[in-house]
Amino acid sequence: MDLATLVGLVAAIGIIVGAIVVGGDVGLFINVPSILIVVGGTFGATLMMFPLGNFLGAFSVALKAFLHKAEAPDELIDEAVELAGLARKSGLLALEGQTISNEFLNKGIRLCVDGHDPEYVSRMLSNDINLAIERHETGVGIFKAIGASAPAMGMIGTLIGLVQMLSSMDDPKSIGPAMAVALLTTLYGAVIANAIALPIADKLAFRSAEERVNKSLILETIRGIQDGLNPKVLSALLKTYLPKSKRGEEE
Amino acid sequence: MDLATLVGLVAAIGIIVGAIVVGGDVGLFINVPSILIVVGGTFGATLMMFPLGNFLGAFSVALKAFLHKAEAPDELIDEAVELAGLARKSGLLALEGQTISNEFLNKGIRLCVDGHDPEYVSRMLSNDINLAIERHETGVGIFKAIGASAPAMGMIGTLIGLVQMLSSMDDPKSIGPAMAVALLTTLYGAVIANAIALPIADKLAFRSAEERVNKSLILETIRGIQDGLNPKVLSALLKTYLPKSKRGEEE
Amino acid sequence: MDLATLVGLVAAIGIIVGAIVVGGDVGLFINVPSILIVVGGTFGATLMMFPLGNFLGAFSVALKAFLHKAEAPDELIDEAVELAGLARKSGLLALEGQTISNEFLNKGIRLCVDGHDPEYVSRMLSNDINLAIERHETGVGIFKAIGASAPAMGMIGTLIGLVQMLSSMDDPKSIGPAMAVALLTTLYGAVIANAIALPIADKLAFRSAEERVNKSLILETIRGIQDGLNPKVLSALLKTYLPKSKRGEEE
Amino acid sequence: MDLATLVGLVAAIGIIVGAIVVGGDVGLFINVPSILIVVGGTFGATLMMFPLGNFLGAFSVALKAFLHKAEAPDELIDEAVELAGLARKSGLLALEGQTISNEFLNKGIRLCVDGHDPEYVSRMLSNDINLAIERHETGVGIFKAIGASAPAMGMIGTLIGLVQMLSSMDDPKSIGPAMAVALLTTLYGAVIANAIALPIADKLAFRSAEERVNKSLILETIRGIQDGLNPKVLSALLKTYLPKSKRGEEE
Amino acid sequence: MDLATLVGLVAAIGIIVGAIVVGGDVGLFINVPSILIVVGGTFGATLMMFPLGNFLGAFSVALKAFLHKAEAPDELIDEAVELAGLARKSGLLALEGQTISNEFLNKGIRLCVDGHDPEYVSRMLSNDINLAIERHETGVGIFKAIGASAPAMGMIGTLIGLVQMLSSMDDPKSIGPAMAVALLTTLYGAVIANAIALPIADKLAFRSAEERVNKSLILETIRGIQDGLNPKVLSALLKTYLPKSKRGEEE
Repeated sequence: MDLATLVGLVAAIGIIVGAIVVGGDVGLFINVPSILIVVGGTFGATLMMFPLGNFLGAFSVALKAFLHKAEAPDELIDEAVELAGLARKSGLLALEGQTISNEFLNKGIRLCVDGHDPEYVSRMLSNDINLAIERHETGVGIFKAIGASAPAMGMIGTLIGLVQMLSSMDDPKSIGPAMAVALLTTLYGAVIANAIALPIADKLAFRSAEERVNKSLILETIRGIQDGLNPKVLSALLKTYLPKSKRGEEE
Repeated sequence: MDLATLVGLVAAIGIIVGAIVVGGDVGLFINVPSILIVVGGTFGATLMMFPLGNFLGAFSVALKAFLHKAEAPDELIDEAVELAGLARKSGLLALEGQTISNEFLNKGIRLCVDGHDPEYVSRMLSNDINLAIERHETGVGIFKAIGASAPAMGMIGTLIGLVQMLSSMDDPKSIGPAMAVALLTTLYGAVIANAIALPIADKLAFRSAEERVNKSLILETIRGIQDGLNPKVLSALLKTYLPKSKRGEEE
Repeated sequence: MDLATLVGLVAAIGIIVGAIVVGGDVGLFINVPSILIVVGGTFGATLMMFPLGNFLGAFSVALKAFLHKAEAPDELIDEAVELAGLARKSGLLALEGQTISNEFLNKGIRLCVDGHDPEYVSRMLSNDINLAIERHETGVGIFKAIGASAPAMGMIGTLIGLVQMLSSMDDPKSIGPAMAVALLTTLYGAVIANAIALPIADKLAFRSAEERVNKSLILETIRGIQDGLNPKVLSALLKTYLPKSKRGEEE
Repeated sequence: MDLATLVGLVAAIGIIVGAIVVGGDVGLFINVPSILIVVGGTFGATLMMFPLGNFLGAFSVALKAFLHKAEAPDELIDEAVELAGLARKSGLLALEGQTISNEFLNKGIRLCVDGHDPEYVSRMLSNDINLAIERHETGVGIFKAIGASAPAMGMIGTLIGLVQMLSSMDDPKSIGPAMAVALLTTLYGAVIANAIALPIADKLAFRSAEERVNKSLILETIRGIQDGLNPKVLSALLKTYLPKSKRGEEE
Repeated sequence: MDLATLVGLVAAIGIIVGAIVVGGDVGLFINVPSILIVVGGTFGATLMMFPLGNFLGAFSVALKAFLHKAEAPDELIDEAVELAGLARKSGLLALEGQTISNEFLNKGIRLCVDGHDPEYVSRMLSNDINLAIERHETGVGIFKAIGASAPAMGMIGTLIGLVQMLSSMDDPKSIGPAMAVALLTTLYGAVIANAIALPIADKLAFRSAEERVNKSLILETIRGIQDGLNPKVLSALLKTYLPKSKRGEEE
């Protein structure tokens, strides 16, 4: 499980709430109509941009940002090199009984074992990578859309409040509090965008990039196995996927 | 029919109108000259950017955002695999009498049946895909242009109002209401951009991407049929177009 | 002639002027030093970015946005298919006497008739397309530069006015009018950018894209004629350049 | 020499200074600490982004924006066609004694004369083009960095001034002048960015693009000479680099 | 060691601090809750975007911006040409005992000496280059994220302060100081972003580009050695990596 997202969320929101609590009257910052206009308007606008299914799916996708952790590339490499060694020693069919933890690697190996044409296997796995990226981009796009709509809806709310306040400035004493309320929607929009939606969008994009790198590594493994590459050579090739500090002694 | 766009639009506008109604005097927010300057100025600027035909066509294109729903890829895949099976069993000509629901698939199949050169068929369908994308981009571009012009025209309206107000501040009591009116154009611009034009632009872009994926899937089908690909293999290849949850049991 | 640009310009400027006139004193909005600082500063900055020749040429280029209209692709297609039919029936040389309305098509046909190498013809026409795009981008770039400089110069003018006003606030009555004047440069900058320069830049970019599509269509025609493509097949290929509604009955 | 940059700079700065002088007290606009914070802060931030050598080099690069003028493509074409004619008539070695004004063309011709492999010559010249672009981008980047930092530092200066002013508002009379001073850094930042740094960055980028086009033209010339292309054909090919108005009568 | 980053940082921060000190009461600018909200909120948001490991690693990466200096390309070229000469004279194996200062060049040479397939060596080194760029982009991305979050958190802090201030404007005297405090978070956010995080991000990106150029140079060297290229020819090819002023006399 990846704790950073959760810790970051708790820290960011906690600090903002803390600053409010320390300042005294928390009630000042809670205004139901203001919450409705920002949250409702943002969801409305986002719903216009994406089909209902994708919109609802985005929240289960967001969970991935909290729970999911990409497999470590070095474990993948160990597994890949082992499989390549086995294939070279005992032939491709020897891979049939192997338990392979990574789903994508498993799929690739099964395609090899089934004797498919290497070019077809390559195309199939590349397709899979490219189309997964496209699907991930929709998830990222929904949170980016929320991050763009929330401040805009916050500004719309503030403008409405200002117009109402400016139209009836009979009592100078009421100007301050009225303006405070008007500013709340801007505050809500800024918090939703910068402390929730945009960071989640960035984390999902990061996860997608990580997954893409892992899948490229696997694609390279499958090609190596099909070409009967020496496991040592394959290992050296795959180690370029690791930062220098994790490569161990390169020989 | 795709309800999300309509529901989203009603929700976003409804919430904004609600916030105004709850605040009291709705009349404060209706100012015909302000509406004219934002709506008219935006349409003028957009008309400068695009030819009249495309500009008028954009509104029928926008309807697509409300009504159109791309065909589900899994239905397309079923149809494609069936056609590939038929072609493999009884030859390409057997496809002649088939009723094919998807227009683009139908066109591709007809080109195959007519015995055109595979490379020519590929080029023709690719052309069709690329040029459709370009046409869609114009539609998206018009709504993006509206979304960029409306806030600018709103700001211009507010500046005009501010200059008029500031030049004659004899009666301090009139400052507030005059400024409220000046802010209305900014409000209109923000609503038009963020609750109408930009979300429609995004939905159209999403639809265009969806259509492109479907057409790529069909192009891959046509190539597979021309190469006499095994329907099972084609099916596996096409299933990469589905998210994992919809792939069913991958054999 | 393309009226949309002119109609749009008149509408946008007319509405802004109308809002000013309706508000009363038009004189408030005319301030020669403010006009000088925005217009002069913008031209100075733009002149720093582009050579004098391109800068002056941009205004004749802008006329294109008002007067020029790209040839309709369907007329081009009719002409192209006719030429292809003639070439197939009576040989390439039969094209020699033909009057061809489109200059680029004419150039391509002449290159074919002169018996140049197909690859050379292709390279020559592609070069022509790519370099024309690059030249158009300079025209677009100049209006985009004006659209970016004008608001910046407007802001600089307003800052100068504010500093002068704030330094001598002896007479509270003069604050309002002084601030009104200070805001004028911001208003001018916003109008120049959003109602004139940026829409013209966008129209020029649209025209350039249209021309590029037409030239690609012609390049495809020339290749088809050189390959002796069946005119019916060529016609079907070229019709992908049209939106579905204009394709007529696709046979 | 290219006067546009100098004329533009003088015009932009002159108009801004003029607006200040016309307004009366010039001294209001000169505040040494404000100048220090914007200029010093901007240089500090830019120095963090680029190594010292590139940073100092940027100013000699900027001189290029004032002094340098790319060779006119039509002169290059004349020279290229002449050389191609000579090479075709009397062989490549006849080019040995030629005086060639353009350095890059000279280098390419020498590589041909030395009998290097055409592919190697191509790679060498392409390398030269690509790496020169990359070096130019650093120069452009430094001025863009200045253009981004200056307004930020201006805003920081204004915030510091506002905090100081707001903390001690005992004398209402001092508020105006104090705020005027606070705004000065914003004004300096806007002037440095919009009237100096960003236009220079754009001119350098324009020069780099111009140089790239000229070098591509030369690369095409060298390839033509190595292939023994007919000078007339080469001339027609190179004329695509000129705008239509400068192509003369295309035969 | 590269001093520019350190000098720039000290200058930028020093000038800002200087402006504060000169203005009088330094205490005005130190507010612990404001620091907490900006620094804590920024770190929280950044932590949501990147995994903990990368986040912590970013600070050791930032040290690179202060300490690291890319090897000068001209020294690399000298070494490369020498090795190529040796390989040509005495065969690839003669390179075995050589001490090679650059790690990446060393790795490439070892792969050649070990007799690996040239295509494999190329792929391995290209992989290494591309994946290193991707890892560097994460480092750049973290500082860019800090640079985007800090001003947003500063704005959130200011909004909270404004709401609190506006809700209780009983004592007009307290408005100024309260607003001064509210503005502090905006100031902190602007300083963190523009004087620290964004310049470091840019320097890291610059270093990454520099390293990429060096590695491309080395890749070209290795290919040259494998092809048995004449050292003079290789030297001329590699010198395209240097700016003209450093190429010495090109013969």
